[in-house]
Amino acid sequence: MKSETATDSPEKIEMVACIGGGVIGAGWVARLIENGLSVNIYDPMPDAQLRMQPVFDNADRAYAKLTMAQRPRKGTITFCDSIEAAVKSAQWIIESVPERLELKQSIYAEIESHAATDAVIASSTSGIMPSDLQAQMQHPQRLIVAHPFNPVYLLPVVEIVAGQKTRADSIDRARPFYTSLGMKPIHVRREIEAFVADRLLEAIWRESLWLIKDGITTTEELDDIVRFGFGLRYAQMGVFETYRIAGGEAGMRHFLEQFGPCLTWPWTKLMDVPEYNEELVELIAGQSDQQSGHISIRELERIRDNLVAIQQALKANHWGAGVILADYEKKLFDSGAAQAPVADHSQPIKTTERRIPPDWTDYNNHMNEARYLQCFGDATDAFMRLLGCDAEYMSIGGSFFTAETHLRHLDEVGVNEPVYTLTQVLMGEGKKMHLFHSLHHGDGRLLATGEHMLIHVSLETRAACEPVSPVKEQLARIAALHAKLPLPEGVGRAVGQARTQTIEQPGS
Amino acid sequence: MKSETATDSPEKIEMVACIGGGVIGAGWVARLIENGLSVNIYDPMPDAQLRMQPVFDNADRAYAKLTMAQRPRKGTITFCDSIEAAVKSAQWIIESVPERLELKQSIYAEIESHAATDAVIASSTSGIMPSDLQAQMQHPQRLIVAHPFNPVYLLPVVEIVAGQKTRADSIDRARPFYTSLGMKPIHVRREIEAFVADRLLEAIWRESLWLIKDGITTTEELDDIVRFGFGLRYAQMGVFETYRIAGGEAGMRHFLEQFGPCLTWPWTKLMDVPEYNEELVELIAGQSDQQSGHISIRELERIRDNLVAIQQALKANHWGAGVILADYEKKLFDSGAAQAPVADHSQPIKTTERRIPPDWTDYNNHMNEARYLQCFGDATDAFMRLLGCDAEYMSIGGSFFTAETHLRHLDEVGVNEPVYTLTQVLMGEGKKMHLFHSLHHGDGRLLATGEHMLIHVSLETRAACEPVSPVKEQLARIAALHAKLPLPEGVGRAVGQARTQTIEQPGS
Repeated sequence: MKSETATDSPEKIEMVACIGGGVIGAGWVARLIENGLSVNIYDPMPDAQLRMQPVFDNADRAYAKLTMAQRPRKGTITFCDSIEAAVKSAQWIIESVPERLELKQSIYAEIESHAATDAVIASSTSGIMPSDLQAQMQHPQRLIVAHPFNPVYLLPVVEIVAGQKTRADSIDRARPFYTSLGMKPIHVRREIEAFVADRLLEAIWRESLWLIKDGITTTEELDDIVRFGFGLRYAQMGVFETYRIAGGEAGMRHFLEQFGPCLTWPWTKLMDVPEYNEELVELIAGQSDQQSGHISIRELERIRDNLVAIQQALKANHWGAGVILADYEKKLFDSGAAQAPVADHSQPIKTTERRIPPDWTDYNNHMNEARYLQCFGDATDAFMRLLGCDAEYMSIGGSFFTAETHLRHLDEVGVNEPVYTLTQVLMGEGKKMHLFHSLHHGDGRLLATGEHMLIHVSLETRAACEPVSPVKEQLARIAALHAKLPLPEGVGRAVGQARTQTIEQPGS
Repeated sequence: MKSETATDSPEKIEMVACIGGGVIGAGWVARLIENGLSVNIYDPMPDAQLRMQPVFDNADRAYAKLTMAQRPRKGTITFCDSIEAAVKSAQWIIESVPERLELKQSIYAEIESHAATDAVIASSTSGIMPSDLQAQMQHPQRLIVAHPFNPVYLLPVVEIVAGQKTRADSIDRARPFYTSLGMKPIHVRREIEAFVADRLLEAIWRESLWLIKDGITTTEELDDIVRFGFGLRYAQMGVFETYRIAGGEAGMRHFLEQFGPCLTWPWTKLMDVPEYNEELVELIAGQSDQQSGHISIRELERIRDNLVAIQQALKANHWGAGVILADYEKKLFDSGAAQAPVADHSQPIKTTERRIPPDWTDYNNHMNEARYLQCFGDATDAFMRLLGCDAEYMSIGGSFFTAETHLRHLDEVGVNEPVYTLTQVLMGEGKKMHLFHSLHHGDGRLLATGEHMLIHVSLETRAACEPVSPVKEQLARIAALHAKLPLPEGVGRAVGQARTQTIEQPGS
């Protein structure tokens, strides 16, 4: 049944319903559509769409930077005017409404009267126990907690928690689903209020409030102590692994022996809780205004895209969140290849199509010189995938490396403008593949050309070798078709050559 | 007096004494010598030097990656056999002995009988109040707490805390001293046990112990929840700025109104403390072994060098710890430039020098194809600055645009590896500038070449025009010098041309 499906080949989720469109709900929608899933949204607020749009825009901006891999076509969003309309065709239902048990329970009742009985209902609650959430449900076995973190579209972790009546197969189905979205699901073994992360965060929060209230430090100074100190550590290792190192070769036992006794020292005020009152609010909010009031929330959100760079840095070191990103990216690269449409190969082939992302442009918003080559490199990658030079082929057959490139910059292009590449094979024989790409504006205007000689190499020995099946045959087939095309203008040019000169036979 | 010195021109600290050579003491020594300061060490353990060496090695490895700027000559280390020998010529004395008040007080007594009366004594204590530390001192005004974080040579933050008898000028002297070491000193306004960071960490620690003890999660799962979630956030923003964003446009007040009432919810066990006993030690240490036991502490320390990449990623985005690194690096570049020999323009000119940033690499951690052009584009920019084609010139004189490029990819290069470019002028006449760049690994190996034809244009009309003074004269001068150089191999090649063929006169 379902649990077998999950183990053998993961079930294909295509339609998700999101109930509630606050910051968390909108973050879920953003992650889902960026991963090609279609989403039905129900939120009773009349301006829900307007409030959610900035989150979608943020996600667009972040995903444009997150990976070079071709992403799936963005999923569609449908705003529904009832829970019924949102859930009736959904396979997965994500509830992100305010943290009131009765509200959530009444929404589950309405969901259950319209949704398929095997649709999973996943609550985004950050603290309510799943056993309480499912207490009045008709089919409580399909309720799970899947607690994400803000910004949901960028932070990988999601806490998965079962209630007493949750069936194991609901958890089994959750793991591959959230993994396929580029996330790291962690199954919390026993339910507890606030689960794991929010208990840790609540502990920091309560202690922080005391430190501000008692005038030990300000919100800005406290934040600096975090982000210039242990915050950098926590981006890569957690509480225990960090202290394990501190314990030296003797490890965690030594650390515990050294610091265990401190548990009774007065190093925290947490046996006590600061009183929540207007004075405390004014103190904290006033200091926060002084610290960050000159930066708008929109601006802070853009700054928060540092999360992309941090995850990329960790990716380069094969560690932590970087491994999740690398796995995600690899899947995108692989499935980009599988989705390529059948095209007419007797003409130059449309290999890529995109808009110029904001971070590809200089301070005048024109595309940076190096990104022209990026466009052509991506066109080469797409063409290689068309030949069948995919992850599987690379693991046994090898790949093409660029040996030589000639570029002509013919026109400028600005941020967000649409461009596409056409690719013509000039030669594809033996170990060599000679390609000619042209980069065009969406309106057809020629922006640049790229001529490239690639050499097929064994990825094991790094030495040149001939391609094997199916790449060899595919390349020969397209090369034969393209041999009938006229040579593009500019082929065989050397830098600085007079414009009338063209070499008659490229690659000779 | 001293405080004036600190304000006007920072006092020059040249000789530091470090008393105590554990992980923290050794980390201080490493940071000091990497910044060119000489250090006297006193540690009574006979194998002190042996135990400290791995920390110095770690710091060497990390600093080699941290910045491309030329670093000062490493300071010398002298192991002393008495406190007297260590402190008598020191201007700054760092105490990092075990956390026992009486021990520290007896050490201060010995320091004071030999050290200059104006030498600052800075305790690395992570929790004892400075008023207690200084209670029995002859010159208590010069005692401060300067509490760093492990690894001391990489984490920027240092908490500065004054006791009741500490004089303001000791704090005034501390700020520029720690800043000069690439650190971010934060003055804690009022003394309290454990100061700020360790109170927050103690809160997380106590809650974490409960979560493991109660079987909610394991050490590994808890660590994953941190490093795949809020840990990534804390590397860039602290507690309050993060929640300010969560509050949306209404900011911190809204956040407090929403979450203030949770303070009385049972979201933490911190009103209570887990009992420290053998059972708890076994549980935690056993899980930690299972989680990380296959990685040696040395290996974990190397992995922890992710801190370098994270800070570099933040530097690229001008944020947080990245700003500290950028400021530090700028100072190093400036003082390196002051020391650099005047370049010899009769040879190919070294235009750039860097390490390959993590986000420049593909999923195999090799530099992305397009980034080769980035290297050459940056080399062109550097050469243009050398010609005087700077922001001021661009506002009146124009700039060079690349019209045509030829690249040869000759070897691969991986993340964090050092590279440099050499630039040779092939022609610089009229509106044209013909450049030949070569990209080399730090070990001299040739990685790629780039041949570029650039056209000088008016930035106003976007039409070609001749450069004006001083660019015209500078370009003519260097072009004349480079005309005497042999043509580099590969000049004038068209893509796919046979390797023996070279065009005799480039640009003809």
